[in-house]
Amino acid sequence: MGLAERQFGSATVAAFFEDGAIIANALRFEAALARAMAEAGMMPAASAEAIEAAAGEAFDAASIGDRARLAGTYAIPLVADLTQAVRAISPEAAAFVHFGATSQDVIDTATALSLRGAQRHLDAVLARAVAAAADLAAKHRGTVMLGRTLMQPAVPITFGLKAAQWLTALADDRARLAAAAEAAIRLEFGGAAGTLAPFGAGGPDLAERIGAILGLRVPQLPWHSRRGASAGYAAALGILAGTLAKIGGDIAAMMQAEVAEAFEPAGVGRGGSSAMPHKRNPVAAMIARQMAARAPGLVATMLAAVPNLHERGLGGWQAEASALPELAIGVGGALEAIAEALEGLTVDAAAMRRNLEAMRGLIFTERLAGALAPHLGRDGAKAHVEALAKQVTAEGRDLHALAREDSRIAGILSLDRLKSLFNAAEALGAADIFIGRALERAEEERGHGR
Amino acid sequence: MGLAERQFGSATVAAFFEDGAIIANALRFEAALARAMAEAGMMPAASAEAIEAAAGEAFDAASIGDRARLAGTYAIPLVADLTQAVRAISPEAAAFVHFGATSQDVIDTATALSLRGAQRHLDAVLARAVAAAADLAAKHRGTVMLGRTLMQPAVPITFGLKAAQWLTALADDRARLAAAAEAAIRLEFGGAAGTLAPFGAGGPDLAERIGAILGLRVPQLPWHSRRGASAGYAAALGILAGTLAKIGGDIAAMMQAEVAEAFEPAGVGRGGSSAMPHKRNPVAAMIARQMAARAPGLVATMLAAVPNLHERGLGGWQAEASALPELAIGVGGALEAIAEALEGLTVDAAAMRRNLEAMRGLIFTERLAGALAPHLGRDGAKAHVEALAKQVTAEGRDLHALAREDSRIAGILSLDRLKSLFNAAEALGAADIFIGRALERAEEERGHGR
Amino acid sequence: MGLAERQFGSATVAAFFEDGAIIANALRFEAALARAMAEAGMMPAASAEAIEAAAGEAFDAASIGDRARLAGTYAIPLVADLTQAVRAISPEAAAFVHFGATSQDVIDTATALSLRGAQRHLDAVLARAVAAAADLAAKHRGTVMLGRTLMQPAVPITFGLKAAQWLTALADDRARLAAAAEAAIRLEFGGAAGTLAPFGAGGPDLAERIGAILGLRVPQLPWHSRRGASAGYAAALGILAGTLAKIGGDIAAMMQAEVAEAFEPAGVGRGGSSAMPHKRNPVAAMIARQMAARAPGLVATMLAAVPNLHERGLGGWQAEASALPELAIGVGGALEAIAEALEGLTVDAAAMRRNLEAMRGLIFTERLAGALAPHLGRDGAKAHVEALAKQVTAEGRDLHALAREDSRIAGILSLDRLKSLFNAAEALGAADIFIGRALERAEEERGHGR
Amino acid sequence: MGLAERQFGSATVAAFFEDGAIIANALRFEAALARAMAEAGMMPAASAEAIEAAAGEAFDAASIGDRARLAGTYAIPLVADLTQAVRAISPEAAAFVHFGATSQDVIDTATALSLRGAQRHLDAVLARAVAAAADLAAKHRGTVMLGRTLMQPAVPITFGLKAAQWLTALADDRARLAAAAEAAIRLEFGGAAGTLAPFGAGGPDLAERIGAILGLRVPQLPWHSRRGASAGYAAALGILAGTLAKIGGDIAAMMQAEVAEAFEPAGVGRGGSSAMPHKRNPVAAMIARQMAARAPGLVATMLAAVPNLHERGLGGWQAEASALPELAIGVGGALEAIAEALEGLTVDAAAMRRNLEAMRGLIFTERLAGALAPHLGRDGAKAHVEALAKQVTAEGRDLHALAREDSRIAGILSLDRLKSLFNAAEALGAADIFIGRALERAEEERGHGR
Repeated sequence: MGLAERQFGSATVAAFFEDGAIIANALRFEAALARAMAEAGMMPAASAEAIEAAAGEAFDAASIGDRARLAGTYAIPLVADLTQAVRAISPEAAAFVHFGATSQDVIDTATALSLRGAQRHLDAVLARAVAAAADLAAKHRGTVMLGRTLMQPAVPITFGLKAAQWLTALADDRARLAAAAEAAIRLEFGGAAGTLAPFGAGGPDLAERIGAILGLRVPQLPWHSRRGASAGYAAALGILAGTLAKIGGDIAAMMQAEVAEAFEPAGVGRGGSSAMPHKRNPVAAMIARQMAARAPGLVATMLAAVPNLHERGLGGWQAEASALPELAIGVGGALEAIAEALEGLTVDAAAMRRNLEAMRGLIFTERLAGALAPHLGRDGAKAHVEALAKQVTAEGRDLHALAREDSRIAGILSLDRLKSLFNAAEALGAADIFIGRALERAEEERGHGR
Repeated sequence: MGLAERQFGSATVAAFFEDGAIIANALRFEAALARAMAEAGMMPAASAEAIEAAAGEAFDAASIGDRARLAGTYAIPLVADLTQAVRAISPEAAAFVHFGATSQDVIDTATALSLRGAQRHLDAVLARAVAAAADLAAKHRGTVMLGRTLMQPAVPITFGLKAAQWLTALADDRARLAAAAEAAIRLEFGGAAGTLAPFGAGGPDLAERIGAILGLRVPQLPWHSRRGASAGYAAALGILAGTLAKIGGDIAAMMQAEVAEAFEPAGVGRGGSSAMPHKRNPVAAMIARQMAARAPGLVATMLAAVPNLHERGLGGWQAEASALPELAIGVGGALEAIAEALEGLTVDAAAMRRNLEAMRGLIFTERLAGALAPHLGRDGAKAHVEALAKQVTAEGRDLHALAREDSRIAGILSLDRLKSLFNAAEALGAADIFIGRALERAEEERGHGR
Repeated sequence: MGLAERQFGSATVAAFFEDGAIIANALRFEAALARAMAEAGMMPAASAEAIEAAAGEAFDAASIGDRARLAGTYAIPLVADLTQAVRAISPEAAAFVHFGATSQDVIDTATALSLRGAQRHLDAVLARAVAAAADLAAKHRGTVMLGRTLMQPAVPITFGLKAAQWLTALADDRARLAAAAEAAIRLEFGGAAGTLAPFGAGGPDLAERIGAILGLRVPQLPWHSRRGASAGYAAALGILAGTLAKIGGDIAAMMQAEVAEAFEPAGVGRGGSSAMPHKRNPVAAMIARQMAARAPGLVATMLAAVPNLHERGLGGWQAEASALPELAIGVGGALEAIAEALEGLTVDAAAMRRNLEAMRGLIFTERLAGALAPHLGRDGAKAHVEALAKQVTAEGRDLHALAREDSRIAGILSLDRLKSLFNAAEALGAADIFIGRALERAEEERGHGR
Repeated sequence: MGLAERQFGSATVAAFFEDGAIIANALRFEAALARAMAEAGMMPAASAEAIEAAAGEAFDAASIGDRARLAGTYAIPLVADLTQAVRAISPEAAAFVHFGATSQDVIDTATALSLRGAQRHLDAVLARAVAAAADLAAKHRGTVMLGRTLMQPAVPITFGLKAAQWLTALADDRARLAAAAEAAIRLEFGGAAGTLAPFGAGGPDLAERIGAILGLRVPQLPWHSRRGASAGYAAALGILAGTLAKIGGDIAAMMQAEVAEAFEPAGVGRGGSSAMPHKRNPVAAMIARQMAARAPGLVATMLAAVPNLHERGLGGWQAEASALPELAIGVGGALEAIAEALEGLTVDAAAMRRNLEAMRGLIFTERLAGALAPHLGRDGAKAHVEALAKQVTAEGRDLHALAREDSRIAGILSLDRLKSLFNAAEALGAADIFIGRALERAEEERGHGR
């Protein structure tokens, strides 16, 4: 894990993809193959024991990596080292190492085992993030603030609704990721060209045994050249990256000095500046947004790796070896950062109110025009309100006051009706209903141990 | 639809995204909004009828497009034109046009309606492609050919297995696309900032009514800034593009003059050359592969469009307007081409056999080494067979013959055993089992009217 | 040009890529080939005249597009139609139509001609944008505002410096695009497999003649399978898209209600809302940002199209047919929008000053700490200033005032020195020098008729 | 460098981007800043010496990385560690560490120094690859083979021409990469917000001094938020990746068992299989193609990182930290592999001739039709030849023989003319001229020490 990954990535996820972890997973495949063959009567039990024993030892990942280049795959030096280690225990057993398997069987299965660990962690942090967003939604169910569209003030919302949207997106992502993981995390076992030829008709049974040992789902057919499910998992990660950047972007925008409505948690050394002592940078947002800049490209790589020629491809699936771990590590890092930011978010409800009021009633133009429309016609109402709105901007006055003084409006709307039109709390529509739905969703999620 | 789309895209899918179709869908949303409001007692029935009547007319899509630039959205000129048309019927009704909705409600819902049509077509062609691949798998269950990995001969397979892999990938894609469509194709109705403010607490009920009229699912919360499901559908299309390019690539590779094992259907004018009278180009493969070059980038765009600031974003979701239709049209074109290629594929089983035999037994090295391993050890067997393999290449002889003459092998394997080792039909492992599973899967798909 | 392109793209650039324009360019190639052959004595002058005459007529682009699908290229139906038209004039001439050329010669050259027109327009608008940014830089050379980093206030800058950075980026982009265009816009003429076989050794001379007629550079070798220069032009467009989104992003951020420092030009119907009468959306920024969401993916497609097998590829270069025009049209639209925004930008210098002062001296922490460091040590100074900064935030006081009251500071810095430290105009470093350099650069650009 | 990078990446390039190397470069920046300040009289010479001494020591990259996460940048812990080390030498000097600089100054300059080393290596290997392709082009100037377009036989070419195309693409790439490097590799020095405020008007002079010390070009303005040149370098790498995949793809296609025209160099352990003793996989092609699957996505990331808000962005340029090194390392690995493959390529000229002859004259249809056209008309000639071509396929006969027997052709073409039409050596057009041009280009490249 280099500097960039250390800064922005998830250390927990990265641990599942470190060279040592991948090599260990590859050896678990070789051990499971041996044990399964022994169970099926295809190998002496003693040989399987020798292979399992040797596979439990540590191998030199760096040396395997260096020799992998020549071979074009790390499975070849790994099998060579394992065979040597087995031979030291039992010469007869050495003949059974990696029996009937192909490089890609080892590599794809090792990756699946790494992904399984990564996915468990991601799912757990997603659950935390959903819960944190739900807490914000519940707590700020009535906290009125400016709704903003196309980066301009629109109509009032509540901060609870914004948080409810975050939680719904995160819950959707959690479900999408879990479904994609279900499809993508599985055993690969097909042998040289996907026929399991060395095992005759016994291959499928053997595959079931290996899957049972490793706790991996066994697909109907080997998937050497059928990479859709892996790409699907990558895409789910890429979408999650987008959600996290959306949340991070919202937070960073609210954290602007001129807005000052919400703040990432502070802490010693957090978001400091090498030059400016006063600074408090939105670090979680930064991590989420750099990942959102990277994720589309990495998913594109995974999609470009789908078409593989014939039974096992040349240069397609091999591209997954860097793209998939990077996605998982990087999205994991962004997810951890955003979960933490949600859990510790400082919300300034007074500032939200202040920014809303600073609009001098302009955000109620839709309401005002709507109330006038039955009398002035849609276009007439809109034009009348637009004229008043321009006055607000030009003269620095308040739209409510102007409306009260407007003779045409006076003929249509009572002062009480006007007051109600300019009351943000009455202008929230279904916000509360939507928050309620989102909180129910969060409640369901709490029950899920995906 | 420009030249490139006409050549490579699906005309059927494109029809759902033509300007006129999108404008018509947008008008269907406006009409449904009016009818729903009338049902809910929020608008006089006569007004709703006027709006529905006007919305049923044809509008000038080109003019709307031109004025859209200034406004930043086509909904504004569209609503203007509709309002004018309604006013001509009923001035009172004009005040109710587009009531309470926002531009993005119109645009997202119109897109959803286009997608629904596109998805029905894609699903139907996918079903055809699965069936065609199944027919090939069934017919060529026993057609032996070279398995090829990393673009080199590996061990024998059957052409049926290759087709079974195709059908499995296509069936997976069909299921993935259907699930993604289920999530992505839905009503958008949130009003200016996602609160449905103008309808008070009545917004959600109104949404249900609009959804019922349009036959669209109504999500729990508006999704103006929650674009994951749209990106998910795009990703499913992107993965399908990869599958189609895999199949196209396999076909084009088999269609090479030196291989000549399978051919896209011929036909007058099909795959001709502007210069060379003898040429028959793999046109379906070309279409599939150009789309696979484009799909990762288009999916990347959809992912980049996920993070949208606050309640409705600036420049994020707007990017979907070109990327999503292009993906659907382009993948649709590739799918139609590959379905047609599979349905009309010419297979030369004799050529497959010939190419296999031209390997002079080299593809049985794994089998031979496996049979010798118990006696010579794994490495010893591999080394011995490698030496013979080099002789095959150097002297142009056949490995079976060399093995028969080899004294060391003679001491281990009988002539009958040798013969069996060099018999491709006995070297197919679980190929037939896997084909059987895939055919069952195809049978299930046949039942599905997704 | 569909709805999305009409809204966001450049109509001027789009005109060069419309079907009719591409077909006309293709016919210009065929005419130039005929004339060049006649000049070289390879065709009777009368035949060339017949071909030129026929190629000057209008052809049915839609029909050509429809038949293109079957053939896999639009060149085949185009040549068929042209041949028929020529035959009507001169049966002998018909034998010479498209003589010795291949489909890709026609297509690549037609695209080059379209690109040439597009590039001229883009270059001219870029020059306008550079000039507009220079005007802003010159006018606001002394307009002090908040510098903002990581979306937080940093230290003072001038708005002139921000504009100087914009102009420098645009000028860099203009130069990069011109250089890439120089490489990419060229004749393609190689015949069936890049040997110009039908012309014997006379091919290269013929190529020179065609290039001269069309005004296109003739590369040393045909480039059917050498697509780097096309991808390079696409990449330059992609980078420009990034610059435009940076400028648009800056503008949209300044245009936020709470910031209110600069505004896109207003205008009837510009940036309105279908729901909210008060709204003025940053439309140029929206266009630029949606294009920046799309450009990376489209450039990725162009890069994916680079590797083409053997003499002319299957499915690589064909992907350029949609990606390259879209990039040019879309980036053109964003460029036009940003040029217009820069030309009409409303700048509120008072608001800039106000936002700076609202920081209550916090943006001078670096200066204050720097002045204290020689006395308190770097870390001591930073810690002392951080403590004061926290007091500013907690108590709502001004840092300058707090510093004046601080006994430790009083022992180190005179009141005059303090005042100077808190004077933004004295805190601008080399901003003015940098603006001067940028303006010189703009002056040079003004001279360029690229 | 993880497993995937070890297998596919360049170890030489990777060394420039290892954590230790980046940290060392960052310290070189800090040392150069100190020395330059001392030269400019802004710091006591003794302090600068202390900083230079401390910066020459090794720091704990892993610890810096871990603390970087909290800060959001590795510059903060690095400056902290350096300050501590300086303080141990000279407490006064500690106050001058990192004076006036910002994190991004350190990071961008450190990256530039790493890129400089990487670029030198890439340029040198590109020179090797160009030379190797030139040797092949020269040696096989007359080696006739099948030209192949859209993966189908077209007309004859020479292998020399194919190699000439490779060398031209590589030479183009070398020039493009060098120009992009010239723009991208430069000093970053702007201070907190790009004004170099702490140095008053002296900043630009200081920048020149730092640039001189580090041997880096000093741009006219700081480029914190102007990332075009970095993206341009990435794009040039991405295009090179495409060229390498094109060459690798050509080689792998020729290396297919049924084609067998050219082979990657063999060697102990090279391209072996974990299962099949006879296998020799095209490892260089695999490396090049997996990189071409990844490069478009990584370039897309670099483009997505271009738009940075205001003076220094949040989450844009930070995404470069992973994408740019990966591109350089990965493309470096592919380049080394292809250079090696070109240098050791085994070419089987007899097989090329054999595959050409196996076409039974079909590749001469263009020539035959061309010769008949003046007599039968273009369409008549094409139709007549197509009919004969079908006979060739149906009856397994040779087109030359059929043409000799054809009474209509006999009336038009003499037997000698026919013989000449079916002579591949006479059908090569300008191939030799093009090869000559490419060889001249290679000669020029040999002189370049870019």
